[in-house]
Amino acid sequence: MGANSIMTAANEDRLWKDIETLSRITDHGRPWTRRPFTPLYAEGREWLRQEMETLELETYLDAASNLIGRLPGTQPELPPILVGSHTDTVTGGGRFDGIAGVAAGLEIVRILRDSGLRLRHTLEIVDFTAEEPTDFGVSTVGSRGMVGTLTESMLASRDQEGRILRDCIAAAGGEPARLAEPLRKPGSVAAYLELHIEQGPVLIESGQPLAVVTGIVGIGRYELRVAGQPDHAGTTPMTMRRDALTAAGELFTELERICREPYEAPVVGTVGVVHVSPNAANVVPGEVTFKFEVRSVDPELIDVVCSRYLESARQLVEARGLELHVTPLTRSEPVAVSDRVREALVAACGEVLLVSGAGDQGAEAVPQIPSGAGHDGNQLSRIAPIGMVFVPSLGGRSHCPEEWTDIGPIAQGAGALARAVLRLDREL
Amino acid sequence: MGANSIMTAANEDRLWKDIETLSRITDHGRPWTRRPFTPLYAEGREWLRQEMETLELETYLDAASNLIGRLPGTQPELPPILVGSHTDTVTGGGRFDGIAGVAAGLEIVRILRDSGLRLRHTLEIVDFTAEEPTDFGVSTVGSRGMVGTLTESMLASRDQEGRILRDCIAAAGGEPARLAEPLRKPGSVAAYLELHIEQGPVLIESGQPLAVVTGIVGIGRYELRVAGQPDHAGTTPMTMRRDALTAAGELFTELERICREPYEAPVVGTVGVVHVSPNAANVVPGEVTFKFEVRSVDPELIDVVCSRYLESARQLVEARGLELHVTPLTRSEPVAVSDRVREALVAACGEVLLVSGAGDQGAEAVPQIPSGAGHDGNQLSRIAPIGMVFVPSLGGRSHCPEEWTDIGPIAQGAGALARAVLRLDREL
Repeated sequence: MGANSIMTAANEDRLWKDIETLSRITDHGRPWTRRPFTPLYAEGREWLRQEMETLELETYLDAASNLIGRLPGTQPELPPILVGSHTDTVTGGGRFDGIAGVAAGLEIVRILRDSGLRLRHTLEIVDFTAEEPTDFGVSTVGSRGMVGTLTESMLASRDQEGRILRDCIAAAGGEPARLAEPLRKPGSVAAYLELHIEQGPVLIESGQPLAVVTGIVGIGRYELRVAGQPDHAGTTPMTMRRDALTAAGELFTELERICREPYEAPVVGTVGVVHVSPNAANVVPGEVTFKFEVRSVDPELIDVVCSRYLESARQLVEARGLELHVTPLTRSEPVAVSDRVREALVAACGEVLLVSGAGDQGAEAVPQIPSGAGHDGNQLSRIAPIGMVFVPSLGGRSHCPEEWTDIGPIAQGAGALARAVLRLDREL
Repeated sequence: MGANSIMTAANEDRLWKDIETLSRITDHGRPWTRRPFTPLYAEGREWLRQEMETLELETYLDAASNLIGRLPGTQPELPPILVGSHTDTVTGGGRFDGIAGVAAGLEIVRILRDSGLRLRHTLEIVDFTAEEPTDFGVSTVGSRGMVGTLTESMLASRDQEGRILRDCIAAAGGEPARLAEPLRKPGSVAAYLELHIEQGPVLIESGQPLAVVTGIVGIGRYELRVAGQPDHAGTTPMTMRRDALTAAGELFTELERICREPYEAPVVGTVGVVHVSPNAANVVPGEVTFKFEVRSVDPELIDVVCSRYLESARQLVEARGLELHVTPLTRSEPVAVSDRVREALVAACGEVLLVSGAGDQGAEAVPQIPSGAGHDGNQLSRIAPIGMVFVPSLGGRSHCPEEWTDIGPIAQGAGALARAVLRLDREL
């Protein structure tokens, strides 16, 4: 089984108690909601700080108001290993997104303590500030602040109540004036590891408790406008129409068709937002505007699929005598996962599955899948090798009150992270 | 050429002067807008009343506030022949919809006078009150009042300013208390004729100046709800999605495909209104609700096409593992045009085209097309044989400031109506 077999397993009861405690510090009018920069958020963090101190971690807030608990290593000159996630939720969110990863961080410290193991590297458990989309129009606020990508204009942005992000960070205990520079530079973090719920259906459908993330997808987003002619729905014969909606209908299914073809890496494409004009029962739609996005961990594949789709869309629209207007919206590059961290996580997951009896094939059987959603790891990848472990989301659902992950896989994931931390502590 | 060759032709200058005069009595902030029950509407009608009196018509307002000018016939015991249309417009409308028909009514009186002809039947030129959709949720207000289909609940309806339709009719000179009974009973009107702009592209595309209407289409309207699953657009593989929008996309093109097939009578089908939920860039659409309608002058064809489409839609949606929910919305039956009136109009149009040199084939060359839009004729058909003549709409457009019809076809249409009135006056 390898060197890590001296480790004790994660304790489901302790993990569940942490998750349950945080789930009680939420807005009872909007189930499980704990928005950043609110009294509930501060209350949850105060509980977390006390838990960290109970575990004899040195707690502090950095300038981005990230809450950090330090477990000093035997070689203080080495850069720390970070394990983290977040305790804020979306409005009407769930009990696991982010929270499971923070609870796993605490559990790793307990496992190390129970196993009588000391790390060479300092281990820091991080509750990143405001990971979810905020009303300031910024997400991953804390990890951005840590790596120096929280810009002046982001800091100056206001929410609907007129609060300024800079002031909120200061009120949460941060020092926004220091955020013009990165708080941590490349090389100053040995590795960043995170456990997170999958937020998708792959694990729950396959019956697997754990997956290792191969990368965080990049996203290409475009707006397409199909321009036809708004005609009277009664008086315009079928052959004389320039119906923007029937043309758009072909484009909706065409993106699906292209994305369903086999490629080297997984790819997904979605039309999520549609606006029909004039959107009246008795008018042939004159214009349909919609946004589409393509995601993959392979940046070239994003380009290939977007190009193929745009070319096909143009042909379909022109064949109908209509016009297609294309506006590129945003493009984010995929985030690479470190091979070394990924391999350590795969080996660790394999060990945990063997030990727990949940699997009998070890590392080869551990699924490796992309993360289709962004995380604090997107930011941390700028300064450190990163890696992530996913645990199953019931029904593939998240960001809703029904969000659910069994405690078993969360405990297995925490155990795997502990083993990976120990392995990386020796290797790095 | 027949008996009507003694008629003088319509005078384009007189017709254009009437249309232009009414076009000046409009809201200059919203081009050509003259909404019913406004001071501008009253001003336009006052001008029209004076024009009628200049032509020595007996003017009066009926209980539905329809403005009527009577040219008494030589046999007062005969039911009158009615020619009419309306002077209200939609908001942001044009100069011809309705107005061309009222102006044609005045011109018919002038043609009869110029030709020294007297009718046996009394001729009534009618400006029907509020034909266009009103803020009260009712259209064809005046013609409904005339035939007894303006219900108590319609009369009690309020617009956004809180005005009650009943009060508006009273203020316009009507007597709403009398509208519980039809103002005219079946048989009390010899025939109803109307010239109207086509509001579609058939005539302008074919280069023909006139068409005779074969009937006013009936409409079947349904709401379809495609229920899938709102999944994360990043984390849900293509094969695990239940995307309501790609399913709906197939349904949009399917209606078009079915309606483009050849049938015994013209049929059109339109998806005009679409709502996508949650309509967010990063969420696979979980639900798409849309309304479709099918129109034809053949009531069985409406049923056949709707049934075929609903069956096909169900198969397409179920093949994707989604659910389809069908809600019938409204059903209006086609309005039959009287064969006798239609034949009189076809003959009259053929004579006018021969006389004017615009056509050399006479009645055989006169196009006969359905009216895809509703008119006051829908109501009048309950009490009298009706018939309509269409004149070309530039670009097929109406209900917009760009609405345009050349004065030549309007004059030819007015001439044709005059000839048809004379023919029907002899036959009926």
